[in-house]
Amino acid sequence: MSNYVIGLDFGSDSVRALLVEAETGAELAGAVAAYPRWARGLYCDPGRNQFRQHPLDYLECLEQAVTAALADVSPEVRAGVVGIGIDTTGSTPCAVDAEGRPLALRPEFAEDPDAMFILWKDHTALAEADAINQRARNWGGIDYTKYEGGIYSSEWFWSKILHILRTNEAVRRAAVSWVEHCDWMGAELVGETRPERLRRSRCAAGHKAMWHASWGGLPAEEFLSGIDPLLSGLRARLYDSTYTAEVPLGTLSEKWAKKLGLSTRVVVSGGAFDCHMGAVGAGIAPYSLVKVIGTSTCDVLVAPELPGCVRGICGQVDGSVVPGLVGLEAGQSAFGDIYAHFKQLLSWPLEHFAVAEKEAILKRLLPQLEEAAAQVAPGSNRLLALDWHNGRRTPDANQKLTGALFGLSLGSTAPMIFRALVESTAYGARRIVERFESEGVPVREVVAIGGIAVKSPFVMQICADVLNRPIKVARSGQCCALGAAIFAAVAAGLYPDVPEAMKKMSSPYAGIYEPDAEQAKIYDRLYRRYGRYATAVEQLIMSEEEE
Amino acid sequence: MSNYVIGLDFGSDSVRALLVEAETGAELAGAVAAYPRWARGLYCDPGRNQFRQHPLDYLECLEQAVTAALADVSPEVRAGVVGIGIDTTGSTPCAVDAEGRPLALRPEFAEDPDAMFILWKDHTALAEADAINQRARNWGGIDYTKYEGGIYSSEWFWSKILHILRTNEAVRRAAVSWVEHCDWMGAELVGETRPERLRRSRCAAGHKAMWHASWGGLPAEEFLSGIDPLLSGLRARLYDSTYTAEVPLGTLSEKWAKKLGLSTRVVVSGGAFDCHMGAVGAGIAPYSLVKVIGTSTCDVLVAPELPGCVRGICGQVDGSVVPGLVGLEAGQSAFGDIYAHFKQLLSWPLEHFAVAEKEAILKRLLPQLEEAAAQVAPGSNRLLALDWHNGRRTPDANQKLTGALFGLSLGSTAPMIFRALVESTAYGARRIVERFESEGVPVREVVAIGGIAVKSPFVMQICADVLNRPIKVARSGQCCALGAAIFAAVAAGLYPDVPEAMKKMSSPYAGIYEPDAEQAKIYDRLYRRYGRYATAVEQLIMSEEEE
Repeated sequence: MSNYVIGLDFGSDSVRALLVEAETGAELAGAVAAYPRWARGLYCDPGRNQFRQHPLDYLECLEQAVTAALADVSPEVRAGVVGIGIDTTGSTPCAVDAEGRPLALRPEFAEDPDAMFILWKDHTALAEADAINQRARNWGGIDYTKYEGGIYSSEWFWSKILHILRTNEAVRRAAVSWVEHCDWMGAELVGETRPERLRRSRCAAGHKAMWHASWGGLPAEEFLSGIDPLLSGLRARLYDSTYTAEVPLGTLSEKWAKKLGLSTRVVVSGGAFDCHMGAVGAGIAPYSLVKVIGTSTCDVLVAPELPGCVRGICGQVDGSVVPGLVGLEAGQSAFGDIYAHFKQLLSWPLEHFAVAEKEAILKRLLPQLEEAAAQVAPGSNRLLALDWHNGRRTPDANQKLTGALFGLSLGSTAPMIFRALVESTAYGARRIVERFESEGVPVREVVAIGGIAVKSPFVMQICADVLNRPIKVARSGQCCALGAAIFAAVAAGLYPDVPEAMKKMSSPYAGIYEPDAEQAKIYDRLYRRYGRYATAVEQLIMSEEEE
Repeated sequence: MSNYVIGLDFGSDSVRALLVEAETGAELAGAVAAYPRWARGLYCDPGRNQFRQHPLDYLECLEQAVTAALADVSPEVRAGVVGIGIDTTGSTPCAVDAEGRPLALRPEFAEDPDAMFILWKDHTALAEADAINQRARNWGGIDYTKYEGGIYSSEWFWSKILHILRTNEAVRRAAVSWVEHCDWMGAELVGETRPERLRRSRCAAGHKAMWHASWGGLPAEEFLSGIDPLLSGLRARLYDSTYTAEVPLGTLSEKWAKKLGLSTRVVVSGGAFDCHMGAVGAGIAPYSLVKVIGTSTCDVLVAPELPGCVRGICGQVDGSVVPGLVGLEAGQSAFGDIYAHFKQLLSWPLEHFAVAEKEAILKRLLPQLEEAAAQVAPGSNRLLALDWHNGRRTPDANQKLTGALFGLSLGSTAPMIFRALVESTAYGARRIVERFESEGVPVREVVAIGGIAVKSPFVMQICADVLNRPIKVARSGQCCALGAAIFAAVAAGLYPDVPEAMKKMSSPYAGIYEPDAEQAKIYDRLYRRYGRYATAVEQLIMSEEEE
């Protein structure tokens, strides 16, 4: 019985290993290992939005999570593992040497944050993103940002690389090439990390590095060196080709086979970003929108063909989610984070409480707010929020926008305000759906996965009412790892392609939130109100920027 | 030594009696009595904004407060009391019978809230205020609202009367006339309450009942009956003449002299509203703006002459503050209430705490917030609030406006938001000062009295910085009662007029908040930002109203 696969999901704080029976998608065992250096706050400076992760955190936790998951199953199952798939966060790039080794694995760079992986949410490269956008708008050639919504982000590959090149001479001299976390992880497992042999992820390259087949891969050398001469020559040390994730990278190296207690015949599939694989784990079909709802959202849609560029949507990449389909990525830059922020505000009077007591109160707070907010009828007060507490990712990325709250009266209660915040995140979700549709990409189905999808019926029902569409919620709480396992199964030859594997392996639905017709009608009106306020505030903020 | 006077200050919750030495203004003794029925919440319905006060609350507490204050002084001082002055809240009208008795003092109306005093903050008469404004704009005659800022409020005399006439037939039949609390209180003390003999307060009539000498007193019968036939004939049962508050009403009746332990020779002066007398207690001079800062603000300015109508300011009444000068009244409909609301929000997680524990935390909360907010530099974040949580009183009254908060990020802390709220109330104060000046009324001095002026150096310093003017704070915490005592001293013949009495009796300053030049410069910029956001939000709200 050789039909077990492992999905490895490298998240922001930990890696999860999920052992899956490939015939049915049944989740047999799983284990999570939290990055130890990261947990201690090392190499990070939240005040500057600097977030770095040491490659040893990944390596140690990978071993720990896989061996822990395998410890729970019989030797027969363990012997039946034939594939490993991997997803990671992104864009999370790192400088590597000629061997493809992340520089921080060399003794001289072991403590240098600039020689580590630069986590997706690191915002140190704001100036570099500005420089890239300037260049893209003015250089007179191809608009390389056009498949990324027209605005290149400080969170992405080139911005981060240029920032390090500009600020750390030692790393600049030692960096032969740069990898994404999802490129390197599988390469490490198969023991072939040399940059010129690395199989780069289509998903990472297409969504974050302006790679596109139509212009022959990465942006032209002339474009890049025009941003900053420091980028000169780097293109040649990166890559031309990219690979979709079902393409096998090879088999486990002896070193890793031994560490993990697996055979060297285990196939390792290609890497991709977590939400994209999560969409596969949730069984994404053409024109379904899979929303991964947590602190922020990542929204993934696949389509057989596109009417052209989709205005204001972050990414449109052939094969980035399901090979053969175009993957589109959108998202809300804050979702659950907005609720958590409100909770944090309300906890201010508890500042001097004993930790245990404070935590006990905080643990109950969101459920209590939800319960009380459920009693507030939509439109029964004038409260209205704008969900831009962390800027706006989609549609029309704009990091300069900030959140707002209107309609405050002396009678506004915490649950009323909380409800307005939840409604604002649902309005933000509707904006994305409407943008897809107004750009000619129909949204035929909405599927939600992630923490909030599973944990908050209150939020999900408001989303269904605001969108006026049913929202399906995947049963699996580990869709990303499950997606990685699906790619492993295809790479190992258990299925001919990803759609066939999804039919058997992807998560069934735990339930469907149906919109309430009456609430939907009210929200239709309130959503138009949100639109008027959003437009006015965006104008106010942008006119300030111009001052 | 016959030079003692008593100031009676009827506030929203209690009456204060202040015994003052008339030669120096020294406060010799004082006592407060809280309205017992009001304290139990009787006759009120906060959900409907119905706030009524029983006349027995006033009568019982008056006796209690005066006798308690007198109990603390020697028989000689007691025998030396020559005058009593009175201020009350307003507009706080009540229906009276042919004897001038508030209907609730008759057994058949003893429990009818509509037969009681309708407290200033009662908002049950919104529809009636609309009807009055409609009529004022469309009837083709004199604009009777022109000395009241152009908008008649639901909080005022005619709105409240019409509301009761429309909704309570028994009161309508029994109501021979209507009085303001400040009209009735002194009349009761001298024992002459019959409507045709009552000396009506210039302050109340001019600011709240559209009385103006230029059109022969109250609005024309034709105007009033055109609002609603229910008002027909009422004008003739009200009044033509009004009196400034230094004019004596008479001397204490035997009944009240006995109750209070005073002589029947004690002179009772005329009534006026609390903030107006507070301005006198604080020594108001031409073109000083006295801000009574508490839950809301009442801003009083006196001027020897006006360039014309002052656009958007609630009241402009000859002699309403100091006889011989025009009194102007402005105000912010929420000030300390906005801080209290934020405190209330933050206390939500404490809902299930034991009362004592919760109260202990709440008591510390505003001082703690102030301390933390003092560390936040102006302009160091994007937070900005609009101070319209309870609508806007001045300039340009608009009850439909609501509060707002901009610039929210995931890093916005409670002290940052609190500071933005405090700044917004200071911006609201600056708007009033600027309106006076742009209308040709210079503001030569700003004086603050009231709870927040005395208690919060943090708030007062921000006000000084935002206004970029020094703010003087009166030393007395009882300027309203002191002002009433000043009127008593003039009425009793101890001084020839109010300005002479003020020179000796009004409160000295406890201190001056000087603006910090650097902060003022920053706030100048932030205040312009406030103006842009305020304009945009007002447009949004008003365009919704038109929908």
